[in-house]
Amino acid sequence: MELDPAELTQPERYKLLIGGITPRPIALVSTVAPSGVRNLAPFSFFAGVGSNPMTLLFCPANNDKGEEKDTLRNCKPRHEGGTGEFVVCVVPRALVAQAALAAEPLPPEESEFDLTGLTPAPSVAVAPPRVAESPLAYECVTEQVIRTNPGARGGGNIVIGRVVRVHAHDGVINDRLHIDPAVLDTVGRMGGLTYCTTRERFEQRMGRG
Amino acid sequence: MELDPAELTQPERYKLLIGGITPRPIALVSTVAPSGVRNLAPFSFFAGVGSNPMTLLFCPANNDKGEEKDTLRNCKPRHEGGTGEFVVCVVPRALVAQAALAAEPLPPEESEFDLTGLTPAPSVAVAPPRVAESPLAYECVTEQVIRTNPGARGGGNIVIGRVVRVHAHDGVINDRLHIDPAVLDTVGRMGGLTYCTTRERFEQRMGRG
Repeated sequence: MELDPAELTQPERYKLLIGGITPRPIALVSTVAPSGVRNLAPFSFFAGVGSNPMTLLFCPANNDKGEEKDTLRNCKPRHEGGTGEFVVCVVPRALVAQAALAAEPLPPEESEFDLTGLTPAPSVAVAPPRVAESPLAYECVTEQVIRTNPGARGGGNIVIGRVVRVHAHDGVINDRLHIDPAVLDTVGRMGGLTYCTTRERFEQRMGRG
Repeated sequence: MELDPAELTQPERYKLLIGGITPRPIALVSTVAPSGVRNLAPFSFFAGVGSNPMTLLFCPANNDKGEEKDTLRNCKPRHEGGTGEFVVCVVPRALVAQAALAAEPLPPEESEFDLTGLTPAPSVAVAPPRVAESPLAYECVTEQVIRTNPGARGGGNIVIGRVVRVHAHDGVINDRLHIDPAVLDTVGRMGGLTYCTTRERFEQRMGRG
């Protein structure tokens, strides 16, 4: 089967991305609006970038009106009108329902912390709080935002953030800075409303090993 | 526990990225060197970007000498000396060993297709072949490369690609363009040499649903 994206609709192209790029890690992203309202929303176009400096990215696509979502408006650099800061919280199996609830498109003046009942805990180096219940969080300063199609429905935006602090619950990171996947118990996004657990694991050596 | 990346080594920061951002999808990326040699390498800093245009990214960090890996040298835009093209192939459980073997750092004149025994199948719109054994592949044209720290060990590079063709084995994509996760049977990367399967799945409604 061979498909040309130019002959598909935007929702069809979206299906082919989220159904094929799996499993996707989930960034539950905390931001603060210039007005002070605390925002929280999940994103699964989320990846590490590099370790020198420690950098990650997530991609909040434009909404169905072609507008930037609250998270992007809040975390974009100051010279673009945002605060230039965000916190990425990882999502274990126990927090999936609340993380998914935070996807509810609330008006900008309402907080997903209130909607979900998740607890804001103060960050150290940035203004947006982390989610106290999340076992691991990365405080980030926004380096830049790359836009693939500004103003268009489904247009992509790549938010590149430098990690300035890492927070972890006790028992998540050991003395050698290894993270225990059984303790973290993250989940991945698949297509549609489907998720996978990370509980069936195996090892595979790299290269000729 | 609270950690400041500025007080950690580069390998330590790397551990905190790959152990925390999980599960990560795997892009087995095919490129062709300007010399004609076919390259194949796996990357797990890999994400969708947006569906208008259909765009994805992957992040090949610099190697331990601070140099660009073969994949990046091959796929970067023509005005930077590359070919401007690549193919992302997804990795099911059955191909994990070969995908990991393709991580072997071969000299640029040797092909990972030969090393792994994977079969190059002709692409339609780009020069690099797809992996015939992979159930799903995205032919891509490189839009741009963002570099976070050129020349530095562990410096990140974000390769942004526009998808120009999607290939799927029979039975992977249905008439409504839904992708069956059980047929695709992808795996995710965790920290270290650990992987997870996507065989334990569940559904969760979004927002107030």
